[in-house]
Amino acid sequence: MKARVYVTLRQGVLDPQGRAVLHALSSLGFDQVRDARIGKYVELEIADGPRDEAEKAVREMARRLLANPVIEDFRVEIPGEGEAR
Amino acid sequence: MKARVYVTLRQGVLDPQGRAVLHALSSLGFDQVRDARIGKYVELEIADGPRDEAEKAVREMARRLLANPVIEDFRVEIPGEGEAR
Repeated sequence: MKARVYVTLRQGVLDPQGRAVLHALSSLGFDQVRDARIGKYVELEIADGPRDEAEKAVREMARRLLANPVIEDFRVEIPGEGEAR
Repeated sequence: MKARVYVTLRQGVLDPQGRAVLHALSSLGFDQVRDARIGKYVELEIADGPRDEAEKAVREMARRLLANPVIEDFRVEIPGEGEAR
């Protein structure tokens, strides 16, 4: 079973990597970009089992290891049947 | 308009950061995790305009700056009306 975790900086937390990307895009001529923020994307392969238990476990993993709750938010996604991509 | 870019390592490319996460999760007791791969998640705020043009531009940004096409794949997502989250 696949699970995806998206980790983003909380609103208001300075994102120097995002600033650098914004400037780089602007010097490449992409002037339409107003803001850029960089986060992490974690793809997990977990043993098959009940979906709700898996989601609970992955949320716990995100809280304890993958995200820093002081400055980061996270979102967990477990693709259902037929929407695996 | 928001655009999201997911950058992942290509299949077969070694992912030491993912290995480290896998080991750390295992020592925390999350034995159900079989594999972990780490990617980047870029959130862009771009000037409003036609959606297909925006998507084309963002794919170009990904190709030229955000991803390294030799070792990374990317996926672009422009959330439509009503599915912004």
